[in-house]
Amino acid sequence: MLHFYLKPHCKLSFLVLLLWVSLLVDSNSGFELDDSLTYIWPLPSAFTSGNRTFTVDPTLSLSVLGKGGDSKILKEGFERYKKIIFKHASEISLFQKLRGISFVYDISELRIIVNSDSEELQLGVDESYTLFVAKNDGKSIVGEATIEANTVYGALRGLETFSQLCSFDYDTKSVQIYKAPWYIKDNPRFAFRGLLLDTSRHYLPIDVIKQIIESMSYAKLNVLHWHIIDEESFPLEVPSYPKLWNGAYTKWERYTVEDASEIVSFAKLRGIHVMAEVDVPGHAQSWGAGYPDLWPSSSCREPLDVSKKFTFELISGILSDCWTSTPHIKQWLNDHNMTAKDAYQYFVLKAQEIAISKDWTPVNWEETFNSFSSELRPRTIVHNWLGPGVCPKAVAKGFKCIFSNQGAWYLDHLDVPWNEVYSAEPLEGINNVSEENLVLGGEVCMWGETADASNVQQTIWPRAAAAAERLWSKREAVSVQNVNSTVLPRYHYFRCLLNRRGVQAAPATNYYARKPPTGPGSCYEQ
Amino acid sequence: MLHFYLKPHCKLSFLVLLLWVSLLVDSNSGFELDDSLTYIWPLPSAFTSGNRTFTVDPTLSLSVLGKGGDSKILKEGFERYKKIIFKHASEISLFQKLRGISFVYDISELRIIVNSDSEELQLGVDESYTLFVAKNDGKSIVGEATIEANTVYGALRGLETFSQLCSFDYDTKSVQIYKAPWYIKDNPRFAFRGLLLDTSRHYLPIDVIKQIIESMSYAKLNVLHWHIIDEESFPLEVPSYPKLWNGAYTKWERYTVEDASEIVSFAKLRGIHVMAEVDVPGHAQSWGAGYPDLWPSSSCREPLDVSKKFTFELISGILSDCWTSTPHIKQWLNDHNMTAKDAYQYFVLKAQEIAISKDWTPVNWEETFNSFSSELRPRTIVHNWLGPGVCPKAVAKGFKCIFSNQGAWYLDHLDVPWNEVYSAEPLEGINNVSEENLVLGGEVCMWGETADASNVQQTIWPRAAAAAERLWSKREAVSVQNVNSTVLPRYHYFRCLLNRRGVQAAPATNYYARKPPTGPGSCYEQ
Repeated sequence: MLHFYLKPHCKLSFLVLLLWVSLLVDSNSGFELDDSLTYIWPLPSAFTSGNRTFTVDPTLSLSVLGKGGDSKILKEGFERYKKIIFKHASEISLFQKLRGISFVYDISELRIIVNSDSEELQLGVDESYTLFVAKNDGKSIVGEATIEANTVYGALRGLETFSQLCSFDYDTKSVQIYKAPWYIKDNPRFAFRGLLLDTSRHYLPIDVIKQIIESMSYAKLNVLHWHIIDEESFPLEVPSYPKLWNGAYTKWERYTVEDASEIVSFAKLRGIHVMAEVDVPGHAQSWGAGYPDLWPSSSCREPLDVSKKFTFELISGILSDCWTSTPHIKQWLNDHNMTAKDAYQYFVLKAQEIAISKDWTPVNWEETFNSFSSELRPRTIVHNWLGPGVCPKAVAKGFKCIFSNQGAWYLDHLDVPWNEVYSAEPLEGINNVSEENLVLGGEVCMWGETADASNVQQTIWPRAAAAAERLWSKREAVSVQNVNSTVLPRYHYFRCLLNRRGVQAAPATNYYARKPPTGPGSCYEQ
Repeated sequence: MLHFYLKPHCKLSFLVLLLWVSLLVDSNSGFELDDSLTYIWPLPSAFTSGNRTFTVDPTLSLSVLGKGGDSKILKEGFERYKKIIFKHASEISLFQKLRGISFVYDISELRIIVNSDSEELQLGVDESYTLFVAKNDGKSIVGEATIEANTVYGALRGLETFSQLCSFDYDTKSVQIYKAPWYIKDNPRFAFRGLLLDTSRHYLPIDVIKQIIESMSYAKLNVLHWHIIDEESFPLEVPSYPKLWNGAYTKWERYTVEDASEIVSFAKLRGIHVMAEVDVPGHAQSWGAGYPDLWPSSSCREPLDVSKKFTFELISGILSDCWTSTPHIKQWLNDHNMTAKDAYQYFVLKAQEIAISKDWTPVNWEETFNSFSSELRPRTIVHNWLGPGVCPKAVAKGFKCIFSNQGAWYLDHLDVPWNEVYSAEPLEGINNVSEENLVLGGEVCMWGETADASNVQQTIWPRAAAAAERLWSKREAVSVQNVNSTVLPRYHYFRCLLNRRGVQAAPATNYYARKPPTGPGSCYEQ
């Protein structure tokens, strides 16, 4: 076997020709689209399609209408999606030039109507949109694609869907929309569709967090629950306590407040809330006196992964150990006639009180509900994680609930196959509408013990997309019987879309998540 | 444990406060820079440093001199590196604003002198540069950083080095250069520093290939050997034979000629040659007659991974099988009084002849040299892969050689630890200078059987960087005894630099490459 390249004095880069006698080119027909399926992920709540193909102008222009039309979020979103849709744009013009064609495209303008000029991004913000793609055959030769939304965030969801309708056709070298005309009316089933990211077990550089946020928007996830700190490291700057981030792994593995703010802005431009979880010692008054005082005593520093590893009982136990063995705390407990568990409850409720006095809504991991639900403020949101069946109990008592059943939605559980992620239903076990309405949504959790900058995206995707469709699409659409024939081809397709957009989504059907492909093959079948 | 977020009507994104009694913040002092080491990767060939710290102006300006100063490659390179250096720029201005400081920076201008206006990018292009970073204490308050290079590609290497000198200092929130002043005089040891990328076993989207090219420039690699096609899939458009890319896995897993051209341009802007390896059947005349004729017969289509899996003997065997069992070829062999092995040699030499007549330089994988070296044209470059000891033999016979010993530099060999990659020496076994000069360099090979868009970067990095330093830096600098104390900290540092720049470089010291971190911890120690 040999290859050749141009001699040094030849212009441009090397060109190599490898010649063999018996090159074997096989026609890998392989995967074909099943036209009865709709390759939009997550599936819109209502849509109709046709049987025509429209071409899309690579110089697609934006026209805006409505009070929210001038939004920077909208305009930047449009530019972002244009780059995604027209990755191959140069080829189209070359194609035209070579053939001397002045091509008339079916769609040359995207009209976006945003009814409200509010850019508030809060839980329950209106993310609905309609997307209409048709060809004005009669009166005008200019085709029409229109997104209408009440908020700019709905418009962003519509842009994502529009980008998924657009395919680059390699034969004509143009961007095409198949199965047109389209009429899509869409809105999410749940308001809270989250991904937890843990930057304490491993620091994730801001560029990596931005990559993750960007990819979340492709699956219409809308909350980044940023678990910034934990006992392993404290990467966040807290300006009033400037020594706290000495707890970072190294001086380079830290976030300034401006970094955090930059991440919040970056996410907002994509319609994603950042729910930054910052662990704050209850004994905050001791910070001023000297940071070592944060610990009950020097012998009570053992790592406490309360957010995940230990049940409430274990936590109580550890607190108990420390509190009851540390003289000044023991004295305080005695003075107040409390056990260590009483003290924990006291602390939790005290914290709730502070929060509510500031008009914040407390979210509690489920342990507090499991242990002393009757004491919790009614506004408490119970964040499930231990297992199934908690949300039904919580909503039955009138609490709101977020579903993160670890057996299905902890992404670090690598042995949960995609279809189990997909079939986990937040409303399971709840049978009346008013209780169902108390389930805000769900969250997949990317705990970081074995996920760092090298593999975090690979661990998140594509399984987070399975949960994303569960949370966005209508329950009847996602609760189909034969997922292998109806959902899996679409899931493969979305995984490959993520790859095309530069996201390291892993093979879809390996039994263990984030495993390499087992051999050569197409993305659409691995 | 509880967290709180702002009520819906509050502006901006959710803010969560999680309160515990006993938050344990440990001071993870951990990894510290060893000041006796120089954290530039690959290590420059000559440098001196000082003991001062300079600040760098976030509005750093570029001034250009020399015939090559107007190059677009240079200007785009500067803008690219500015974004890398000043990821945290907004913080600096905020920092200043908060304190009402009009900060005087030590370095506010980067002067780049490029002597030649040639942008030819060929094997052996001058990549040398000098980089001088000092403070003009006497006559001017404006500090000085100067890169001087003969070509724009040398200037790009200097920019990479400059970017590695710049660190964001979290305490002052400014970009600083430590151990200044610096005087660096640098040039590569080898002209050919390659990475082979295989897009046949798995298709890699163009965005992914661009990410790889970008990351190569961080390690000063300069050749992307793009193994575009192989028997598993034929993703490349060949306009004169428009059915060839029917051999792609799917219609979406293809490259247009414009894609290929875009990749070549993208790489050139970063000083990287694309050596595109295109397998072309020897019987090219049969293409016109109908593509099925590419195969000797329909029973002779079995996959042939000649580029890697089979030795030359095996190839001969298979060719033998097909050629001798296919009547018209058998007849031809008989007519010419040839065995199948003769015919292979005939084909190889015929192909060389064609290439040389077109003024190309043939590069042959080592099999042709191993089998009939005396017949090869003297201009042939022998590309080693099977094992050590081939380059010494090749250069002894006057051939040029590229080193890719599979036991050390095949990145899909996951069980080769970083230090074995690092210590593989292309000049091993060659003991005179004129023969040494025939070794053009080396190439790490990323064969794609188990590497796709999800994990290819993780498999390439950081081990490709170990080879990159071997190929760039002086032999005496990389042939140190105790790599764990002198090289490993720098290698960790560079891996984390890649992560910071959004590259999925895997933990450095796991025994198997691309394995996840085994538990929580700092990037600098994993």
